[in-house]
Amino acid sequence: MRKIRMGMVGGGQGAFIGAVHRMAAALDGQIELVCGAFSSNPERSKASGKELYLPEERCYATYQDMILGEKELPEDVRMDFVSIVTPNHVHYGPAKMAIENGFHVISDKPLCFNLEEAYDLKKVVDESGLIFALTHNYTGYPMVKQAKAMIANGDIGTIRKVVVEYPQGWLSTFLEGTDQKQASWRTDPARSGIAGAIGDIGTHAENLAEYITGLKIEKMCADISTLVEGRLLDDDGNVLLHFDNGARGILSCSQISAGEENDLNIRIYGTKAGLEWRQMKPNTLWVKWLDKPTEMLRTGVGELYPSAQAHTRIPAGHPEGYLEAFANIYRNFARCIQARLEGRSPEPYDTDFPTIDDGVRGMEFIYKVIESGKSKEKWLEM
Amino acid sequence: MRKIRMGMVGGGQGAFIGAVHRMAAALDGQIELVCGAFSSNPERSKASGKELYLPEERCYATYQDMILGEKELPEDVRMDFVSIVTPNHVHYGPAKMAIENGFHVISDKPLCFNLEEAYDLKKVVDESGLIFALTHNYTGYPMVKQAKAMIANGDIGTIRKVVVEYPQGWLSTFLEGTDQKQASWRTDPARSGIAGAIGDIGTHAENLAEYITGLKIEKMCADISTLVEGRLLDDDGNVLLHFDNGARGILSCSQISAGEENDLNIRIYGTKAGLEWRQMKPNTLWVKWLDKPTEMLRTGVGELYPSAQAHTRIPAGHPEGYLEAFANIYRNFARCIQARLEGRSPEPYDTDFPTIDDGVRGMEFIYKVIESGKSKEKWLEM
Amino acid sequence: MRKIRMGMVGGGQGAFIGAVHRMAAALDGQIELVCGAFSSNPERSKASGKELYLPEERCYATYQDMILGEKELPEDVRMDFVSIVTPNHVHYGPAKMAIENGFHVISDKPLCFNLEEAYDLKKVVDESGLIFALTHNYTGYPMVKQAKAMIANGDIGTIRKVVVEYPQGWLSTFLEGTDQKQASWRTDPARSGIAGAIGDIGTHAENLAEYITGLKIEKMCADISTLVEGRLLDDDGNVLLHFDNGARGILSCSQISAGEENDLNIRIYGTKAGLEWRQMKPNTLWVKWLDKPTEMLRTGVGELYPSAQAHTRIPAGHPEGYLEAFANIYRNFARCIQARLEGRSPEPYDTDFPTIDDGVRGMEFIYKVIESGKSKEKWLEM
Amino acid sequence: MRKIRMGMVGGGQGAFIGAVHRMAAALDGQIELVCGAFSSNPERSKASGKELYLPEERCYATYQDMILGEKELPEDVRMDFVSIVTPNHVHYGPAKMAIENGFHVISDKPLCFNLEEAYDLKKVVDESGLIFALTHNYTGYPMVKQAKAMIANGDIGTIRKVVVEYPQGWLSTFLEGTDQKQASWRTDPARSGIAGAIGDIGTHAENLAEYITGLKIEKMCADISTLVEGRLLDDDGNVLLHFDNGARGILSCSQISAGEENDLNIRIYGTKAGLEWRQMKPNTLWVKWLDKPTEMLRTGVGELYPSAQAHTRIPAGHPEGYLEAFANIYRNFARCIQARLEGRSPEPYDTDFPTIDDGVRGMEFIYKVIESGKSKEKWLEM
Repeated sequence: MRKIRMGMVGGGQGAFIGAVHRMAAALDGQIELVCGAFSSNPERSKASGKELYLPEERCYATYQDMILGEKELPEDVRMDFVSIVTPNHVHYGPAKMAIENGFHVISDKPLCFNLEEAYDLKKVVDESGLIFALTHNYTGYPMVKQAKAMIANGDIGTIRKVVVEYPQGWLSTFLEGTDQKQASWRTDPARSGIAGAIGDIGTHAENLAEYITGLKIEKMCADISTLVEGRLLDDDGNVLLHFDNGARGILSCSQISAGEENDLNIRIYGTKAGLEWRQMKPNTLWVKWLDKPTEMLRTGVGELYPSAQAHTRIPAGHPEGYLEAFANIYRNFARCIQARLEGRSPEPYDTDFPTIDDGVRGMEFIYKVIESGKSKEKWLEM
Repeated sequence: MRKIRMGMVGGGQGAFIGAVHRMAAALDGQIELVCGAFSSNPERSKASGKELYLPEERCYATYQDMILGEKELPEDVRMDFVSIVTPNHVHYGPAKMAIENGFHVISDKPLCFNLEEAYDLKKVVDESGLIFALTHNYTGYPMVKQAKAMIANGDIGTIRKVVVEYPQGWLSTFLEGTDQKQASWRTDPARSGIAGAIGDIGTHAENLAEYITGLKIEKMCADISTLVEGRLLDDDGNVLLHFDNGARGILSCSQISAGEENDLNIRIYGTKAGLEWRQMKPNTLWVKWLDKPTEMLRTGVGELYPSAQAHTRIPAGHPEGYLEAFANIYRNFARCIQARLEGRSPEPYDTDFPTIDDGVRGMEFIYKVIESGKSKEKWLEM
Repeated sequence: MRKIRMGMVGGGQGAFIGAVHRMAAALDGQIELVCGAFSSNPERSKASGKELYLPEERCYATYQDMILGEKELPEDVRMDFVSIVTPNHVHYGPAKMAIENGFHVISDKPLCFNLEEAYDLKKVVDESGLIFALTHNYTGYPMVKQAKAMIANGDIGTIRKVVVEYPQGWLSTFLEGTDQKQASWRTDPARSGIAGAIGDIGTHAENLAEYITGLKIEKMCADISTLVEGRLLDDDGNVLLHFDNGARGILSCSQISAGEENDLNIRIYGTKAGLEWRQMKPNTLWVKWLDKPTEMLRTGVGELYPSAQAHTRIPAGHPEGYLEAFANIYRNFARCIQARLEGRSPEPYDTDFPTIDDGVRGMEFIYKVIESGKSKEKWLEM
Repeated sequence: MRKIRMGMVGGGQGAFIGAVHRMAAALDGQIELVCGAFSSNPERSKASGKELYLPEERCYATYQDMILGEKELPEDVRMDFVSIVTPNHVHYGPAKMAIENGFHVISDKPLCFNLEEAYDLKKVVDESGLIFALTHNYTGYPMVKQAKAMIANGDIGTIRKVVVEYPQGWLSTFLEGTDQKQASWRTDPARSGIAGAIGDIGTHAENLAEYITGLKIEKMCADISTLVEGRLLDDDGNVLLHFDNGARGILSCSQISAGEENDLNIRIYGTKAGLEWRQMKPNTLWVKWLDKPTEMLRTGVGELYPSAQAHTRIPAGHPEGYLEAFANIYRNFARCIQARLEGRSPEPYDTDFPTIDDGVRGMEFIYKVIESGKSKEKWLEM
C-alpha cells in the first residue's frame, strides 16, 4: 500500500479553491501532492510549488507540460490523478488531456465552460474507463448522507415538496470593478460561461436536491436576474420546479442577498415527515414528524445510517465542517484509485462521490435555467 | 372615558379563532364583550354566551338579530362594533349589515368569499365613514413594525429581493375526512372560496411582504397544487414575484409541509443589508449588514423605532407572542373608535392596522394567484 | 356564573408589574377589575383608576380604605380578591389585612419583606382557609408543566444534576443613581429586604427548580457579591446545591450580566435523559436522550402531558409568551375562587399555582443564601 | 524549506485522539508523519504504521526505541518532533526522553499523571530550550482568538463574571464496565491520575477561561462528585471561582449530563458588554452590548482582530470545526520549528499555542480542585 499521488492544475498563490482542494486531499493522509501546474504564469507556478515543498522539476509551466512530463516518469513516481481547480473555462482542456493520457481526474464544478465540452468530456471519460470525480462537495457531509438514506429507506414517505436555497451576499456590490480575483472571473462570461450565480452555486443546489431526494427535476420555470448594475451575468435566480414523481419545488440562489454568508439549505417534505439541513450548521439534520416531536439528528449521535457513519471522522459534539465534507470526496475518490491499483472492487461507500454524469446534469441544468429565464413560456422540460 | 363595547359574530364553543379574538380584545382592558351571535345554532349561541358571562338577552340567534337588536338599545348600552370571526362565506353578510346600521367592524381575514363581495363591501365601508379593520394579525408584532420603519427610513437601502414563506404541515393528511372543524371548512370551496392555502395563509404572506416593504407586487408567476388526494382546494403554492420597484421575490405557502407548525417568515435584501423575521421567534429581527456583524434586534432592547416601541407592552426578555400582536390590532382599532367618540383625531400609531383596502388587495391577490396557477402564460400582472 | 372581581393594591401609573398583573387577569375574560388602591398618593390612585375605567368611589386612597370599604359593599358587588403588586415592603400589610377581612389574595413575589412576616402570614392564611396565590409566574408556562410531568412520570430517570440560571444585565450600571423607579426600590434595603438579585430573581430560579424536579434543596454553598460600586444589595449570586435525593446543582442569578435580557433557564440531567427549558424561548422543551436523537417538544405538538395541554391556549406555532404564562396563574386562582363560590372542588389542574408555602420557602431560601454568602462554612443546611 | 517531520507515540489502531492528531498535523501540508511507536504492542505498532504508509523500519516497538533510533538517523531524515497521544500515565516518560534527546514535543493534555511529573517536566523543558506544545485545542478556534483580543483591547470593559461549562453525557452509564477503550482508561486512577472529569475536560475549561480573559483563578470552592455507581473517579464537578481582578466565576464540568455531546461554552460579562462562545457552534461569537443590539460575530465576516484572521482558513459561511482548530495548534507549533530551522524568530501569531506553563497550570488546577472538593473549608487559594 502506498499513498495516492496528486498533480494539480491551478490553485497558485492567492487562489481560494486550490488551497481548499489541497487541505481536503491532505486531511486523511492517503494522498500526496507530487506535482502541479499552478498558474498560467510559469514563474508563479514554480513559486507556488516551492511553497508546497515540491521539487522544482515537478512544478510545470503548463498543464500540458505536466501531463506529458509526468507520463514520462517511472510508474512508481508519477502522479496517479490530476486535480483541476481552475476557473470554468480551463476545466475541459486539462480534464480531457489527462484522461486521454491515462490519468484519473478530479475537477472543480461546474463540469466545464459549455454544454458541448460537457458532452464531449463525458464521451472521453466513459470510453477511458478512468475515474472522474466532480467536487460537488456539499454532498460530502455526513448528515446529507443520512438524509439521502432516510429518504431511500422511505422514512419520510413520498416526497411532496422540496425547497432548496443558496443565498450569498458577497456580490451585493460591483465587486468585479475592483481587483477581487474571485469576483472577477465568476462574473466574466469569457471565463465563467453563460451563467453567473446559477453556474457557481445554483448547480450545487440542483445537485444537492437531486442527490438527497433521488428525484429528477422534470420541469422548471425560472426567473433569472442581474440586480447589480453593470454586471454581465446573473446574480439572482428563482426557479419553480416539478420533480419526476410529481413533487413541487423551489430552487433559489443568489449572490446579492446582503449579509448572507453561504447559507445553502434544503427542506424536503414527505407524507410522513419533513427534513431540514443547513450547510452552515452541517452536523444537524432536523426530522419534523407529523404529530410527534421534531428530532434533531446529529453526527455521531445514536443510530445513524451506515453511509452517514462512514463519512464521519470524530465523535459527537466535535464539529466537522466544510473541509471534512470536501475531504470525503477526495477520500472516496482516492480509495477507488487504491482499489483499482490493487485490482479489486471498491468498498460500497467509497464510490459515493459525484461523477461525470453529475457534471453533465449540472451543465444541462445551467443551460435549461438560463433558457427558461429568457423564455415567455411558463414551463420548460429538462 | 368608557370601555369600547364589542358584539361578536361567530366564535361559539369549539371554535378556534373566536377565542383568539376575545383574548386579543380583552388583553388591554379597554374592550368589553357585550353581546354575540356566536353560532348559527341558537341554542349553542346562548350556551356560548353564558360561558362568556353574557346576559341571555344579548346572546342572539342570528347576526341579523344582533345588529337590529343592539341598534334598538340605548346609546350608552349598545355595542360599538362588531367582530366577525366566522368562516369566509359569512364575512360579507354581517360586515355589510353592521356597517349599514352604523356599527364599526373588525373582521377576520380574508375579507370575504369572493371578489365581488370585496368590491361591494369596500364601497359600503368607504361611503359609511365607519372604521373597518381586518385582522392580518401578523403585522401587529413590534419587530414587524421595526422592519417596516427601517425600510421606510432607508436603513437597508433599495430592496432587491424578498422571500416570504408560510409553511404549515397540519393538512398533510386528508384531515377534512375526519370531523376536524378547522380542516373541514378551510378545504371546502363552498365556505372557503376559490382558494385553500392561498386564501388562508398566502394572503397573510402577501400582506406581510407588502406591509413591511412598502412595495407592491406587480407581476406574478404561480405554481398552485393540491398534493393531498381528494382535497378540493389548493394546499401548496409557490409564486415568483416582481415588485413595483423591480425587486424580485418568492412567496411560498403550504399546508402540507410535514412537521412545520406555523412558520411564517420573511427575508428582505436591500443594497445595504438584509432583514429576517420569523413569526415563531417574533421578538427577534435579524439585520444582516454587508461587511459588518449581523445584529440581533430584540423587542425592548436599545433604540428601536417609535412604531415598534408603541406596540410593545413588557420589557426585553419577557416574550410577547401571537396574542399580544393580535391584541395590537384590537387596541389600535378600539383607540380609533375612542378618538371618534371623543371627537378627536387618533394618535399617530393608533391608525396602524389593516383596513378594507388591505382586504380588497388580499382578495385580488387570491384571484390573481389562482388565475396564474391555471395559466400557461408565465407572468400575469396584478 | 359570574366574573370574579378583583381589587388591586399598587400598580398605579408608571408601574411595570401592575400592568402585567392586569393584563394577565384580563386575558381570559373571567376576572373583572372593580376597585383599587393604586398608589400611596391618593390623587394618583384616582387618576390611575380613572384610566382603568373605574368609578371614582372605588379608587381608594389606601389599601386599608379599600379593604374596609369593599367589605361594606353588598356581596354581589364587592371584590372577591385582592391583587398585591407593590414593592416587597408593602406585601405583608395588605395581604394580612385582606385575609383577615375575608378576601382571597394573590400577591407578587417574594412573599414579603422578611422571614418573620412570612411565618406570620402563613399562620394567618392557613387559619383563614382562604386562597392565597403567589405569582411565581414562570411556573405557568406549558412546557414547564410538561417538564414537571415528565420527571414525575420517571421519563428521564433519577435526577443527578440541576443547573438553573437567571442572568439579567439591566443593573450593570448604577441605575439606582438615576430616577429609574424599578432600579430604585429593588436595590434599596428598606424596600426590598435583605437581598437584591437573590430576592428579585434568585427566588424565581429556586422556585422553578424545585417545582419542576419535585426535589428540595438540602444544602447550599453561596458566593454572593455586589459588583457595581455603591450598590447596597447583592447583584450577583452563585450557589452550589445538593438536593434531597443526592443530586448536585448550581443556581446562578445575576443582574450585572451585561447584555442579557431575562434569560431564566434550567437544565436537568437524569439517568435516562436531560431536559432543557429557556424562558426566552418558552414554547420549546428539549429532551436530550442518551444515545437517541434529541427531541424538541413544542407547545401544541404531539402527545404532551395533560397538565401542559391544560395551560395552552392556542395551536402550535402561535407563540404564547410571558403574559399567557402569568395569566395561567390568575386563571387557576380565579377558577378556584369560582369553585368555592359554587361550593365544589376545583378541577385537578386548577389548583396548580404557587401558594403561601412556596412563598415561605422562597423567603427561607433568601435568608439561607445570604447567610451562606457571609459564612466561612462551606455547606449550610436549608 | 522542507516539511517538518513528526514521530508519534501512541495512536495505534482503534485509538481516537491519535487519529485526530494525525489529521490536525496533515491538514496544512507542512508536517509529515515519518515514524511512530503507535502501541505498547509491537505487532500492533507495526500494523498501525503500515496503514499509515510508513516503512517498517520506522514503526518502533517502544517510544524509547523510536527516540533512540531516530537520533541515529541522518539529520535530513530523522524526525523533528514527537507527538504524544497516549493516556495520561504515558505522557511524562516519552516527553522527558524526547526533550532530553533533542526533539521538540507536542503532547495531549493534561500534561502528565501527577504534579511531581509536571514540575519535573517543566524543569527539563525550560532547560532544554526546545519547543513544547500542549494540545488544549479549543483555544485554537478563530473566535476564541477574537474574544481574547477583544478583552485585551478593553472592548467589553472590566470583567465582572465568567461562566465556563463543559457538559458531556457519554459517561452517564457505567461504560467502563464494557470494553469501551476511551471510558476504561479515563475512569481508571492508574492511568488517568487523581481526577476523572476534572482532568479530562475541567482543565480544558480552566485553560479556555484563563486564556480568553487573561485573568487568573485566585480562589475556588469545589463540589466534586461521582454520580455513577462503581466509578472510581469524579464524573461531575462544579466550582465557584474568584479571579485575580475580583471577578466572580463558575466552572462546571460533567460527564453525566445525559444527552449533552461536547458542549464546552463560556460567557464573560464585562462592564460594557458580555461575550458568549460555544464550541459546538464555533464560528460564532456573540457580543451582547449594554443597550445596543447584540452582535453575532462570525469567522470571516467584517473586521475581526488579526489574531482571529490568522487562524481562519476559508471564507465566511464555510464552517471550520474541531479539526481546523486542532490544526491551528499544530500549524503554529510547526511554524515555530520551521523558524528555528531557519534561524529566525517566529511570526507574531505563530507562537500562540499552549505551552509547558499551561500544562503545569492545568495540573495545579486539577490538584487544587480535587483538594477543594474534599475540604470543609469554603475557599482554597490557587
